[in-house]
Amino acid sequence: MEDKRINNFNAGPAALPLEVLTEIKDSFLNFKNSGMSVVEVSHRSKWFDNVINDAVQRTKRLLNLDARYEVLFLQGGASLQFGMIPMNFLNADNSADYVNTGTWSTKAIKEAEIQNKKITVVASSEDKNFSYIPENIQFNRDAAYVHITSNNTIKGTQWKNFPDTEGVPVIADMSSDIMSRRIDVDRFGLIYAGAQKNIGPAGVCMVIIRKDMLELVPDGLPSMLKYTTYAQKKSMYNTPPCFAIYAVSLVLKWIEETCGGLDKMEEINKEKAKLLYDYIDNSGFYKSTVMVGSRSDMNVVFRLPSEDLEVQFISDALKNGFGGLKGHRSVGGCRASIYNPTSIKAVSALVDFMKIFENKMG
Amino acid sequence: MEDKRINNFNAGPAALPLEVLTEIKDSFLNFKNSGMSVVEVSHRSKWFDNVINDAVQRTKRLLNLDARYEVLFLQGGASLQFGMIPMNFLNADNSADYVNTGTWSTKAIKEAEIQNKKITVVASSEDKNFSYIPENIQFNRDAAYVHITSNNTIKGTQWKNFPDTEGVPVIADMSSDIMSRRIDVDRFGLIYAGAQKNIGPAGVCMVIIRKDMLELVPDGLPSMLKYTTYAQKKSMYNTPPCFAIYAVSLVLKWIEETCGGLDKMEEINKEKAKLLYDYIDNSGFYKSTVMVGSRSDMNVVFRLPSEDLEVQFISDALKNGFGGLKGHRSVGGCRASIYNPTSIKAVSALVDFMKIFENKMG
Repeated sequence: MEDKRINNFNAGPAALPLEVLTEIKDSFLNFKNSGMSVVEVSHRSKWFDNVINDAVQRTKRLLNLDARYEVLFLQGGASLQFGMIPMNFLNADNSADYVNTGTWSTKAIKEAEIQNKKITVVASSEDKNFSYIPENIQFNRDAAYVHITSNNTIKGTQWKNFPDTEGVPVIADMSSDIMSRRIDVDRFGLIYAGAQKNIGPAGVCMVIIRKDMLELVPDGLPSMLKYTTYAQKKSMYNTPPCFAIYAVSLVLKWIEETCGGLDKMEEINKEKAKLLYDYIDNSGFYKSTVMVGSRSDMNVVFRLPSEDLEVQFISDALKNGFGGLKGHRSVGGCRASIYNPTSIKAVSALVDFMKIFENKMG
Repeated sequence: MEDKRINNFNAGPAALPLEVLTEIKDSFLNFKNSGMSVVEVSHRSKWFDNVINDAVQRTKRLLNLDARYEVLFLQGGASLQFGMIPMNFLNADNSADYVNTGTWSTKAIKEAEIQNKKITVVASSEDKNFSYIPENIQFNRDAAYVHITSNNTIKGTQWKNFPDTEGVPVIADMSSDIMSRRIDVDRFGLIYAGAQKNIGPAGVCMVIIRKDMLELVPDGLPSMLKYTTYAQKKSMYNTPPCFAIYAVSLVLKWIEETCGGLDKMEEINKEKAKLLYDYIDNSGFYKSTVMVGSRSDMNVVFRLPSEDLEVQFISDALKNGFGGLKGHRSVGGCRASIYNPTSIKAVSALVDFMKIFENKMG
């Protein structure tokens, strides 16, 4: 069974470490000798307490979070966060800055505007089809927050250095690069990430919030839409998505104990990306669509000389055991998503296949 | 491993059918020959399309839903629905009726009031500690909807006959009895249910909505909080909780194909409940706290002669392989939750154990 597994370059839900999948599988009928599956134990039990505490503590250790930060687990993905952020932090008297680096930033902006909240789009890379990350941005010093998307899954761009906002809290959608590299968490008021790329399966969204942000949360919001509820109840106001949180805890354990922590994880991720970009740049056949300096280490977006060749490439790749290489339906082309669980070996095998295809068709 | 599994009477997350767990386990590294785990396949793939379509179609067949109804899968549990329902269906010009039958109804009422929506609590069983379901209720004919909780997990009550609201759509929280019995779906405008009791693991909430209800949904709501978004995008506006939906599809398959459908499921559930209630009523030792006629077939709540005996009972039961018998922390006592996956054999074994305990301690 295992030897029939493919090299999975899906953009999300994405590959998970085989040892995480194996641990889930092996314990699935009897979790920690409870006599129950992990999906059958109560969320108020010692078994699940250990799971969620483990996930929180590992997150705090991996990101060097101090006591100012809370780690929360919500449902609804990053898309619900797009709505909750302005709902919780913007009122009649303040406003926020947004940077638009593509689809997901655009959606975050739209969800603030739907609610008639005051926001300013202070920079955008739409002028060049979102192929770069804007620099030298003028932020409003009185903004309640600055919103950015740290990595654009679809266009394949990534903030390499986070902006200096002179003390205005940065809120970052890190859905596609959370735990892929070290970050200077100090400047962030809130970080959110759907788990289904770097840290787990779909169905849970990690939120890291600096406690002073909670002071902005107004009355009058439904309990499930207030960050204060999750902070006060340690993500257990109601039944949390237990299985997804369990899987996240295992991926974090794998990053910490098997990979050797975030320094090492970042090093591996940089090596994987370099392998692919170097090959693409030196090839006359494949072509990166993203400006040097803004290229994502997570989602390597590239084109072939024609759309016909792209179709053929994706199809041939799948026959050779490389899945998920089709670009997002909104932009076409090809994309290799190489999140944490994707091994150097898998990326290296992909490069070998790309060479063979180039030699055959180029 | 399997023979070490306990008889699990948890209130939720709760027991799942062993054949469902086994199918998940066996396919966990390679789903449908995709070369990926079910948690690694794209939600836009043919594999997941089949999963979600299967879950929708089985729901439609099991509940005899006609074309007026949509079956949706949301996140956030029933608790988010408490907030979304008034948000989507109440405006400055209308109001809704609520029936209060305990904790969950009380929370649903609170979440409408937080938003300053106009509601009327038209009946409540609080006068007798929520030990019965109110009858002969006067509803407001111009209400936008009537909200009820079909089964109270904590108090152990259940609506046996749904109220005649003379055409006003009923909205029901069926989290703890969905798919446990046949229902006359015609009178319902919306049915919602956290999956983690009768139909799956935690992490997904089933919503069955009659399409005319969608006409009430206002502009100005974030996309993830509008029922219209889920209806238009077939629950895939963003990445859905794939694993939980997959598990739900397998439980629905088990109800349909292994158990023989909802008629048969209801028959089995009634038999299980009768076994327990008959034994409790004939015992001078155990005592039901719920009035005859309002007793839940899902959550059998009972007391022993003293709290000390209850502690001992729960502890002895666990040693003998019966878990989850402690009452909800807010009410104490004992509770056996006997949802769909709990077998007659397990209930019968529990009754045998209860007899032994009574003989020893009574």
